Amino acid sequence: MSRIVRFHQTGAAEVLQIETVPEIEPGEGEVRLRVHALGLNRAEVLLREGRYLEKPILPSRIGYEASGVIEAIGSQVEGFSIGDKVSTVPCFSQTKYGVYGDWALVPARALAKYPDNLNDIEAASIWMQYLTAYGALIELGCLTSEQTVLITAASSSVGFAAIQIARRQGANVIATTRGEAKKQTLLDAGAHRVIVTDQDDLVKEVMAATAGKGANLIFDAIAGPLLLKLAKAAAYEASIFIYGALSLETTAFPLQLALKKGLTVQGYTMFQVTDDAARFARGKEYTYAGLKDGSLVPVIDKVFPFEQIVEAHRYMESNEQKGKIVVQVS
Amino acid sequence: MSRIVRFHQTGAAEVLQIETVPEIEPGEGEVRLRVHALGLNRAEVLLREGRYLEKPILPSRIGYEASGVIEAIGSQVEGFSIGDKVSTVPCFSQTKYGVYGDWALVPARALAKYPDNLNDIEAASIWMQYLTAYGALIELGCLTSEQTVLITAASSSVGFAAIQIARRQGANVIATTRGEAKKQTLLDAGAHRVIVTDQDDLVKEVMAATAGKGANLIFDAIAGPLLLKLAKAAAYEASIFIYGALSLETTAFPLQLALKKGLTVQGYTMFQVTDDAARFARGKEYTYAGLKDGSLVPVIDKVFPFEQIVEAHRYMESNEQKGKIVVQVS
Repeated sequence: MSRIVRFHQTGAAEVLQIETVPEIEPGEGEVRLRVHALGLNRAEVLLREGRYLEKPILPSRIGYEASGVIEAIGSQVEGFSIGDKVSTVPCFSQTKYGVYGDWALVPARALAKYPDNLNDIEAASIWMQYLTAYGALIELGCLTSEQTVLITAASSSVGFAAIQIARRQGANVIATTRGEAKKQTLLDAGAHRVIVTDQDDLVKEVMAATAGKGANLIFDAIAGPLLLKLAKAAAYEASIFIYGALSLETTAFPLQLALKKGLTVQGYTMFQVTDDAARFARGKEYTYAGLKDGSLVPVIDKVFPFEQIVEAHRYMESNEQKGKIVVQVS
Repeated sequence: MSRIVRFHQTGAAEVLQIETVPEIEPGEGEVRLRVHALGLNRAEVLLREGRYLEKPILPSRIGYEASGVIEAIGSQVEGFSIGDKVSTVPCFSQTKYGVYGDWALVPARALAKYPDNLNDIEAASIWMQYLTAYGALIELGCLTSEQTVLITAASSSVGFAAIQIARRQGANVIATTRGEAKKQTLLDAGAHRVIVTDQDDLVKEVMAATAGKGANLIFDAIAGPLLLKLAKAAAYEASIFIYGALSLETTAFPLQLALKKGLTVQGYTMFQVTDDAARFARGKEYTYAGLKDGSLVPVIDKVFPFEQIVEAHRYMESNEQKGKIVVQVS
């Protein structure tokens, strides 16, 4: 008998309940982990609220990212042994395989061993952020060292990952944040310029940072009315990747600017990496290489104990974090 | 002294005036053509109305596509001789170089010799349509024989060009048209399936034609509320190229579908081909090859005499045409 987190109705953080249930034996292609740490993602807040791409099947498990050790292996699983230290790549249904708990059943294809130089906490903070940023910036966006990347809402875990990947490519990196509070952290994290959107003129600042050319690749988590500004700040034939919808307002397509500049606006999720075997393999390789050479370093904001899972979710919703929120399980 | 068309104010077709003016000698990098035929484009209607990407400088010349012979050559022009039969590629400012008239000054880089198997009329009906469709379908869209392309408002000259190019690539071709009237013509032109949007359910029809997968590449001249339907009819990771704005309504970005399917929505104009030397060269080569092997055949709807330039514009605005409207000058 061990603890897992479930919710029986969608809603605010309090719907998350810690329940004691018997472990399930892994089936074909599955393993069971003894979980050490959990990385939190906005996708989990959205699932809990019933606003995610996937709808929860109640009562629903929840959670994408865990680090831990393999304690049971189902049939048809190759390349893993009991006792292996692994973390999970979020390429499964949370509602079926949600990892919040002392144990988690996950498909073996979602497992990745992690480098020895990472601890449990860091190991739970790798895959969502780096594969999400990798897919847009590298795999689909083909970012080069001659280009400028603009990263909005950059103090999220994915934002920091994008800054690090863009720096690894040698690109010019502009990050945005709402208030002054996170500016220095973003500069320290590698952004060449930080735009504080509450006080700065985004379009003017981007143009000043690019000799009037605009940003070639824009990595945006916000959408809504911001898209028009992003189109104004975009270079000729720029790509705007939208991977989130933090703005709950309608998103108008900036048609005239898109025609004039040949702009591409692309909806994007990390599944475009993990659902494609070749991209997935390249993304893992890229991430391992970056973790090893020190260009990719998970930025951890705060670690909560497992009993405070509700507080951890509330903290994510406060938008005060700078980097990854992690929950220590054991 | 020869005739040219100018307009002294923006507005309806009647603002086009035939005026007699002296010829201008070509300057550096320019040639003067004796014009035989003019191909009409919606871009010219929009310029005349003051709604084009480029604003007219009044009084403004007008016109992108002419066929004719070179009668004078300026300095710094290589590869062309007086008497060469050429047509113009619309890679210049209409308001400076507009070609409607007995003569037209054009930059030499906009000239292309045309194959002997084309007459004057056909030669004025090549470049806008084929380079526009080529850029989206081939250069940026990388259309393959395994894919389905959906072409909206397909009975325009660009629409027919897109059908022919898509067939040349071996793709599955779906065309849309508003009413029943043009359906057979589109089937005859090579569309595998024609959706009559006044009566058919676009999304259902596309899904039926693609075993439920949707269209991989969508080539759209309409935008507005149609974009949401196109997103529904799109395949996973489809590209939607918008090259026109026939709908005058606001275009909402279909964010949820774009995230779910990884959709790309791209503003696109032919200038993305002609402003890039390598793409331009490949586009011309592709078009010449297609004209030669018979896979690309300009579809001519109607030929007006030069004196009826106003009527020719009105006819374009009627949306009754199926293919290119041409004006015979001499």
